[in-house]
Amino acid sequence: MTERVFLVIGAGAGIGGHAAARFSRGGYHAVLARRSDDAGLARLVHAIEEDGGKATGTLLDAAADGSIEELVDRVERDIGPIHTVLYNLGAQIGNRTLGDTPHRTFELGWRLGCFGLFRLAHAVTPLMVARGSGTILVTSATAAVRGNAGQHSHAAAMGGRRMLCQTLNAEFAPQGVHIAHVVVDGSVDAPDTLGKLLGERFEAYKAAKGEDGVIDPGALAETYWHLAHQPRNCWTHEVDVRPFTDAPWWNDNPIPAIDTKSK
Amino acid sequence: MTERVFLVIGAGAGIGGHAAARFSRGGYHAVLARRSDDAGLARLVHAIEEDGGKATGTLLDAAADGSIEELVDRVERDIGPIHTVLYNLGAQIGNRTLGDTPHRTFELGWRLGCFGLFRLAHAVTPLMVARGSGTILVTSATAAVRGNAGQHSHAAAMGGRRMLCQTLNAEFAPQGVHIAHVVVDGSVDAPDTLGKLLGERFEAYKAAKGEDGVIDPGALAETYWHLAHQPRNCWTHEVDVRPFTDAPWWNDNPIPAIDTKSK
Amino acid sequence: MTERVFLVIGAGAGIGGHAAARFSRGGYHAVLARRSDDAGLARLVHAIEEDGGKATGTLLDAAADGSIEELVDRVERDIGPIHTVLYNLGAQIGNRTLGDTPHRTFELGWRLGCFGLFRLAHAVTPLMVARGSGTILVTSATAAVRGNAGQHSHAAAMGGRRMLCQTLNAEFAPQGVHIAHVVVDGSVDAPDTLGKLLGERFEAYKAAKGEDGVIDPGALAETYWHLAHQPRNCWTHEVDVRPFTDAPWWNDNPIPAIDTKSK
Amino acid sequence: MTERVFLVIGAGAGIGGHAAARFSRGGYHAVLARRSDDAGLARLVHAIEEDGGKATGTLLDAAADGSIEELVDRVERDIGPIHTVLYNLGAQIGNRTLGDTPHRTFELGWRLGCFGLFRLAHAVTPLMVARGSGTILVTSATAAVRGNAGQHSHAAAMGGRRMLCQTLNAEFAPQGVHIAHVVVDGSVDAPDTLGKLLGERFEAYKAAKGEDGVIDPGALAETYWHLAHQPRNCWTHEVDVRPFTDAPWWNDNPIPAIDTKSK
Repeated sequence: MTERVFLVIGAGAGIGGHAAARFSRGGYHAVLARRSDDAGLARLVHAIEEDGGKATGTLLDAAADGSIEELVDRVERDIGPIHTVLYNLGAQIGNRTLGDTPHRTFELGWRLGCFGLFRLAHAVTPLMVARGSGTILVTSATAAVRGNAGQHSHAAAMGGRRMLCQTLNAEFAPQGVHIAHVVVDGSVDAPDTLGKLLGERFEAYKAAKGEDGVIDPGALAETYWHLAHQPRNCWTHEVDVRPFTDAPWWNDNPIPAIDTKSK
Repeated sequence: MTERVFLVIGAGAGIGGHAAARFSRGGYHAVLARRSDDAGLARLVHAIEEDGGKATGTLLDAAADGSIEELVDRVERDIGPIHTVLYNLGAQIGNRTLGDTPHRTFELGWRLGCFGLFRLAHAVTPLMVARGSGTILVTSATAAVRGNAGQHSHAAAMGGRRMLCQTLNAEFAPQGVHIAHVVVDGSVDAPDTLGKLLGERFEAYKAAKGEDGVIDPGALAETYWHLAHQPRNCWTHEVDVRPFTDAPWWNDNPIPAIDTKSK
Repeated sequence: MTERVFLVIGAGAGIGGHAAARFSRGGYHAVLARRSDDAGLARLVHAIEEDGGKATGTLLDAAADGSIEELVDRVERDIGPIHTVLYNLGAQIGNRTLGDTPHRTFELGWRLGCFGLFRLAHAVTPLMVARGSGTILVTSATAAVRGNAGQHSHAAAMGGRRMLCQTLNAEFAPQGVHIAHVVVDGSVDAPDTLGKLLGERFEAYKAAKGEDGVIDPGALAETYWHLAHQPRNCWTHEVDVRPFTDAPWWNDNPIPAIDTKSK
Repeated sequence: MTERVFLVIGAGAGIGGHAAARFSRGGYHAVLARRSDDAGLARLVHAIEEDGGKATGTLLDAAADGSIEELVDRVERDIGPIHTVLYNLGAQIGNRTLGDTPHRTFELGWRLGCFGLFRLAHAVTPLMVARGSGTILVTSATAAVRGNAGQHSHAAAMGGRRMLCQTLNAEFAPQGVHIAHVVVDGSVDAPDTLGKLLGERFEAYKAAKGEDGVIDPGALAETYWHLAHQPRNCWTHEVDVRPFTDAPWWNDNPIPAIDTKSK
């Protein structure tokens, strides 16, 4: 018997893992794919099963030719139809000057941040269109809507991704496939990404942000769940999230005492 | 004993009424305010009560000095603390050329579309800040993000409203007050607004849009509920919604056969 | 004999005065309107005449009923057809909390920032449409595209103004009237506005910004001239300007050392 | 003796060629690079020389490793310092469904639309920073700001390009390098691109657009010239252009008779 599948590409202990847990609690078979750390992956799968849910873990080199395509085929054949897929990969590398951003880094940013989503859409949209339904959730970042200094690779990849989400939506929404682009405009309590970027400073960083100063990926997973279950007469394409203490990307922070810029 | 209140300003049979019903089902005392039609208001209140919920209806001339302020005072004193308020007023008057848009029409558009929200915020934010929590939901429209021909009054009012939501968010989010600006980018099955605008053509219009071709205000109410209950570490400020068959405002519809514009 | 007129509403010693000087050098009769300071106005007119140009100064209470309308009539009757009008008024009042922003302040911000442009458009577009040509330049601010803390009045007015520019453009561009919305995203060396806001700190402020750290209104006037003379096959509707040292409004400034927000 | 160089990458008979002609008239040595058509290139160079200007033509496979880099080196060594470079390449392929957009097409779109600009910036910014000045103009398209149906490849490339322009601006503007992103939101009278896309329908297409219904690349070249010569206290980063008869991308065209969408 086949089951309704929630597939997450980029399943670390942060957003991806929590989304998998949320959808499994809602009755989905969660399939978690990530690049490395077999043990970490097994822990996520085990925790879902302990909680009474169903989950399958798999390692995936998303940048490799055919890898995403093979995964989609395998899941559909062995587990069940993909109802919702969450593309949760990025290639944030911290701030780098242009001179310190080699060609291959820029290209890898695009391969993971933009081309991978294109390949995923190629693989899943024919299945979803044939079924007349399906949801593609895309975790995105502030870099998708503005390019900060030092973000050449990340912003170019995310900006392309955002436009790609719009072209996918324009073609596939009328065919019943929901595409949602989620602008995560704040730090996430994600040990496998931000945690690794900050290293031993991670706990101090979170403490400095104060209570509720960092996005709880479990809270974000509720928004993903909500998006994936909006009836098709009322679909969201773009939504932003951030902690209440964070200034949105469009605001100055801090506010200048005198507004000389006529802001 | 006081109760947790959901207040909606602009409570017709569409978005406002359905939001009231949704929040009352979730345990709120719904307070419904609208300009006219005592009987229609009574029907909404009665339906909520039939469903086991609590509701109070009141007529309100939102453009009149002191009216919104008096309502907020009365609700807080007589019913309970306003947990969430939905500002659901607009002054869409259909497409009019500039020559056919008198000064007083433009000013009324601003009074209802922008100034009323400013007055509401003046009245409720001190209460919410004192409690360290509260939510202001704002129903908005495509006109808040782009100005179409014939929309001088509506777009100027909504564009001001959107910026006002951002300034309110910048000041009050860090104090625990959640502001959410909802871009409703599609037709809503709202008998009291779109229904009246279209008159006897309303049913034919909906039929032509096809199944799920018009936003069900009950579906939108679920998104309002979700927004109002996001934990403060993961707040949304702006979100869009539309039926799956509607092209988003940024897309051409229909798509030209040859893309001469390098779109 | 009638002459081609450049009319500027909001003609101080900054943007307005420099634009008037630039257009008069280009052969226009410049008409300068401002609220007060007869002596300052006379100095601007005199300087243009010294330079060999033609100019007329007039005091104008733009918020008063009929004032803008009367000015347009008078100029067209007594001087010549208005080829280009620059709406250069705003009501920047510095940063104020909501509690410190009275209703009347918010309303005045709208009257000067948004309603005045609507009234101007009502008055000049019939004339321009009849001639099949004309240009409306609108000086705008960062507050038109994002709402910062403390900017309730200014941002709501400017956000409405930006959408109004779009609705005007949608209706009148096809009739030959060019509308351009100029986002001034930086401090201007304007003694009558920023200078008065900063008082005796103005010179120190400019010195701290460094060489070319503040917009020279004469430089901006060249961009206005360029916009007003684009052939109608290649019109700009929106353009931004800022000093090279200023971070655009969408960027963080300064850039954080570690990009925890996945920006 | 070295000369001030204007380099254009993507020099057909439309925007690129006209920009080269405009800058050569202004005293620059124009260097025109294009992928193919030696004869067409020679005609452009010859026309500039006939007009009394200086120009050099070169064929360039911009997608090939090292090609842009070699060109920049060669120009700086043999001709003179690059004052302004115009990146004028794209990979518009018309509207294609996702299924009809092969992986290699999507990748080529990115190589020409985004990666090429990154490579160009790598090559020229060290030279410009060392000189404390320089301008990078980027011809862009509506696809950079919204993704239409059928535009998967083009929109993803242009969206990445727009964000890249912002990251380049954030890093290099304070070092004296002006980056300008020009959103060409209308058809251009460009025989080598739109002309080839439309083939024998090109003349009929232009006729149907009416007088001044298509952007004259010579007019756009004036805007490029203006941007490249703004003093650094007043730089534009983004500007749009379109014919007066074209609805901007954000507007509905045509306007619906009844505004059911609350636009």
